[in-house]
Amino acid sequence: MKINFSKCHSVLITGASRGLGLQMVRQLLYSPNRPPKIIATARNPAAAQELQELAKSHSNVHVLPLDVTSDSSVDAAVQSVDSIVGTNGLNCLINNAAINMTSELDTVTRDAMMKTYESNTVAPLFVTKAFLPLLRRAAAEGSDMGIQRAAVINVSSVLGSVQLNWGEGASYKSYAYRASKSALNMVTRCLAMDLEAEKILCVALHPGWVRTDMGGPTAPLSPEESISSVLSVISGLTEKHHGGYVDYTGKSLPW
Amino acid sequence: MKINFSKCHSVLITGASRGLGLQMVRQLLYSPNRPPKIIATARNPAAAQELQELAKSHSNVHVLPLDVTSDSSVDAAVQSVDSIVGTNGLNCLINNAAINMTSELDTVTRDAMMKTYESNTVAPLFVTKAFLPLLRRAAAEGSDMGIQRAAVINVSSVLGSVQLNWGEGASYKSYAYRASKSALNMVTRCLAMDLEAEKILCVALHPGWVRTDMGGPTAPLSPEESISSVLSVISGLTEKHHGGYVDYTGKSLPW
Repeated sequence: MKINFSKCHSVLITGASRGLGLQMVRQLLYSPNRPPKIIATARNPAAAQELQELAKSHSNVHVLPLDVTSDSSVDAAVQSVDSIVGTNGLNCLINNAAINMTSELDTVTRDAMMKTYESNTVAPLFVTKAFLPLLRRAAAEGSDMGIQRAAVINVSSVLGSVQLNWGEGASYKSYAYRASKSALNMVTRCLAMDLEAEKILCVALHPGWVRTDMGGPTAPLSPEESISSVLSVISGLTEKHHGGYVDYTGKSLPW
Repeated sequence: MKINFSKCHSVLITGASRGLGLQMVRQLLYSPNRPPKIIATARNPAAAQELQELAKSHSNVHVLPLDVTSDSSVDAAVQSVDSIVGTNGLNCLINNAAINMTSELDTVTRDAMMKTYESNTVAPLFVTKAFLPLLRRAAAEGSDMGIQRAAVINVSSVLGSVQLNWGEGASYKSYAYRASKSALNMVTRCLAMDLEAEKILCVALHPGWVRTDMGGPTAPLSPEESISSVLSVISGLTEKHHGGYVDYTGKSLPW
């Protein structure tokens, strides 16, 4: 598999100020088959120095403020993206923004559960709902399912697999994060059912355990390794992946 | 299978003012192998007329106020239950209280997502955490895993199965309810891992689609049919069910 976004006019990535989101922007930008329009959003773009520098030197990178938990912020971003993508609509929405909070049995709080759900589960649903008119505009072109038509990629985690949360697979403890990601998997599957008739592809994607601020220094994958693989998988998505849960190697995961 | 709670000193059921919770109290009470102590909680017990009448005529039914979303209410209930169960501790906690709100793609709101998660996912976790000292007291008796020792039964739903939310299985649409129940399944599995060493049994249980206020008049099962089956399944829980997801017939469901 290779990274190939040449038939995808536009990609929007949330949470692009650092970590995997920033790495996606960087690798898309330096790919020979890059999309013409890369829209990178961040809660506070002014503080996202690397992203700003990429945008300064590359006219195809558009940086926008987006607080995924705020309806007014989401609505403003939709307006801006509408004027960037125009009649082509938005081909690929990558819901990447997420948080994690310490939440083992003894330390979990109601507040950690609620805030994590708000950012990791509810926000991707409402960002997707808000961008639906632009995704539908792209989907109306009528090509095969995939990023050349319209796709919603929800960045989930293997930690959202209820089945794999057992034995060794259960060594990472986080009630808030795990529950939010299993619920995101459900939201992805609901969206896949609801958007199937319009051939808007929806998948949940596990990027691997990566050495980011969230993944920590002992993770086995570098951001470069994870994202080159993730972008290849996204490049090759077809109708057979619709409503699925895949990891960065393209392998299906059990719910 | 038969309903047999004779070796289970105490059962606590949340959301017992109506629907399946009330039916559990009624059937436990009239079972020949009933538990000596049935603790039925409701947000507003004063308005739960049937429950009050059962308690008036049966000294083994204890009705307590419990708002599962409020820490102070939960803490007060734990104090009361402590004095009811005494040195035996609490054998069986049934997290039954739940809400549903209309939430299809076009109608779902952030508020519906958050409120449903708070009641259906976060509350069972925090009710369980609060009752852990009493469950641990019962578990210290050292019998085999099951309701004769200590068990947490989270009333989930087949609608929380991500895998089954496809094709015909996806005909019932509710982003808020489905996401909350898949997250509850994850919470159940996390609890099962964390409480395994103490042999406190944790399961997620689907009671069937039942003609209650929530299930509506077209559901195939009466509350009597569902709960007689549910209580039989709970009676027969053993270590092999720990961390599982079963329906009212005892069948395992895919996550």
